[in-house]
Amino acid sequence: MLNNNRFLELVGTALPIIQAPMAGAQDHRLAVAVSKAGGLGSLPCALLGLSEIESELRQFRQGSNGPVNLNFFCHTPLPNDTNKDQAWKQRLSGFYSEHGIDLDTRINSPTRSPFNDAMCQVVEEFKPEIVSFHFGLPEKQLVSRVKAAGCIVMASATTVEEAVWLEANDCDAIIAQGAEAGGHRGMFLSDNIATQPGLFALLPQVADAVSVPIIAAGAVADGRGIAAAFTLGASAVQMGTAYLLTNESLVSDLHRKALQNASDNQTALTNVFTGKPARGLCNRIMNECGPMSDDAPVFPTAGAALAPLKTAAEKMGSSDFSSLWSGQAAKLSQSIDAESLTKQVFASAIKHA
Amino acid sequence: MLNNNRFLELVGTALPIIQAPMAGAQDHRLAVAVSKAGGLGSLPCALLGLSEIESELRQFRQGSNGPVNLNFFCHTPLPNDTNKDQAWKQRLSGFYSEHGIDLDTRINSPTRSPFNDAMCQVVEEFKPEIVSFHFGLPEKQLVSRVKAAGCIVMASATTVEEAVWLEANDCDAIIAQGAEAGGHRGMFLSDNIATQPGLFALLPQVADAVSVPIIAAGAVADGRGIAAAFTLGASAVQMGTAYLLTNESLVSDLHRKALQNASDNQTALTNVFTGKPARGLCNRIMNECGPMSDDAPVFPTAGAALAPLKTAAEKMGSSDFSSLWSGQAAKLSQSIDAESLTKQVFASAIKHA
Repeated sequence: MLNNNRFLELVGTALPIIQAPMAGAQDHRLAVAVSKAGGLGSLPCALLGLSEIESELRQFRQGSNGPVNLNFFCHTPLPNDTNKDQAWKQRLSGFYSEHGIDLDTRINSPTRSPFNDAMCQVVEEFKPEIVSFHFGLPEKQLVSRVKAAGCIVMASATTVEEAVWLEANDCDAIIAQGAEAGGHRGMFLSDNIATQPGLFALLPQVADAVSVPIIAAGAVADGRGIAAAFTLGASAVQMGTAYLLTNESLVSDLHRKALQNASDNQTALTNVFTGKPARGLCNRIMNECGPMSDDAPVFPTAGAALAPLKTAAEKMGSSDFSSLWSGQAAKLSQSIDAESLTKQVFASAIKHA
Repeated sequence: MLNNNRFLELVGTALPIIQAPMAGAQDHRLAVAVSKAGGLGSLPCALLGLSEIESELRQFRQGSNGPVNLNFFCHTPLPNDTNKDQAWKQRLSGFYSEHGIDLDTRINSPTRSPFNDAMCQVVEEFKPEIVSFHFGLPEKQLVSRVKAAGCIVMASATTVEEAVWLEANDCDAIIAQGAEAGGHRGMFLSDNIATQPGLFALLPQVADAVSVPIIAAGAVADGRGIAAAFTLGASAVQMGTAYLLTNESLVSDLHRKALQNASDNQTALTNVFTGKPARGLCNRIMNECGPMSDDAPVFPTAGAALAPLKTAAEKMGSSDFSSLWSGQAAKLSQSIDAESLTKQVFASAIKHA
């Protein structure tokens, strides 16, 4: 019954499984492993400079002949609000003194630049088969250039409204991101997390509303989830958390251990790490300052003030101030290699379909 | 592939479909219609007196030979906090003056009593085939009496932890209530709505954790949803919002119209109507005082102060202060009779399985 081939026909992979791009948690090695199994490997570019993007792409091409998905953020940068930044630092001052850190300590934390002309030039030069976006789409002219380069364009929708908007704006396939999903919500037409639908509600309603292929994301981690996603209208799935425990994942040992012990009700959407809502395992900073905080500075700057605390706590073996991104189904993950995982979940999906 | 017969074998219905008990929105007529189609009809008792429960049961028995599900709340009543009640009234005072209503106007609104000895006597006398509970289970002795009367006991779990607890406390079948579901969350081991899992995450993890039959609830409204729920580990589904638009539903015209126009991202969990979190279509009182409010009095008393506003607004054709319970998939509902709906969604499920 996995007889919806629309994604496979569009993208040309053997399996309808996308490895979710996870900035900071992976590099080309995870993408290559998934690609070797027949899935779609993804390279997250949000935290990378241009030369790093090129290097990741080159190494992917050396490792696999399969198509590759280059993923970019396309948020609208907001000006820093120095008053808010100061208030946030004050909010954190108790943690600073507890750890004996000077409140004026600065640690350079990576910035997240939205897709721009320079990144588009890399796309035009290297022509990845797929380019995917999070937080909507970049300006029309950039989308046109990406498509003119022959790339398939995908983007995340967290509501039917966003899915319809993406289709109307030339998106070739839509990732329906259920509220269960780990990491940043791709929401761009609303910032109200209270009304975000779960995948079971979102998927069939998106399927009824758009005609492009749909990829299901959020708590999909095994054969049951893949088969169920197809039944609800998807022709592919995107798995993120499921790959965080694979051998190729670059998450810290603390993050890995937290994922291995996670149960279904231990994550929440939080903005304390970056300023935008993202799902992670609840920890001290989320519990004491959030999980959602009106004081958190604008995306992506909220994390800068946490960086010294994170560094100090992790040195002592604590993840109190670390972002532990996870969806709501970490328990379904397996600590094996990514190529085996990809093949295994697909084989299981066939049995469950 | 709907080849998991565990619920059917336990309960004895022809179809693995439960009509969700919806206090205030239905009576025996809806239950009879679903029962005639082969599903399990439910009678919500939370708002009824003893004689009303008996009357509803008698009328169900006259209308159908099928099994019946009697549903009770089993919350722990909390003492009223008069200071909080007063603060809540002050919070609402602007709405009162806007509608020209005296702040001391009292309207008797229905109370919601938890399952008790007198209700248990009705159960023992009438022996409904199934008794289901929301907000956990009543005290052990009452559960034992219900089981001694020959009734099958079911209850709602919103997390794996709650499902495991229910199984350990002699529950015969567990309703896995995803965050998508309309009406009151059945949560009883936690009151943290931020960590409530969606059905796509909850269902397979509950299936891995308990051995009793599992019923999927939340955004299940058509054949796709039923088939997907089975794939994820359920052997039955419970549909609520899907039945709110049927001919037998008793919701107001305002509520009906709101459901007909609802999209996936227009509901939220709110405590302003009763004091406990429940999912409904966003309206003025939810937007301006919530959706979650620290000021809302304890369950079930929060609504009393809203009653005069609701009455006044509804007279003017407004649902600004009415609870418009709905899950996240109202758009999948159909305005037909409940017997036809039940048969149709099951036939569709067979095709999608």
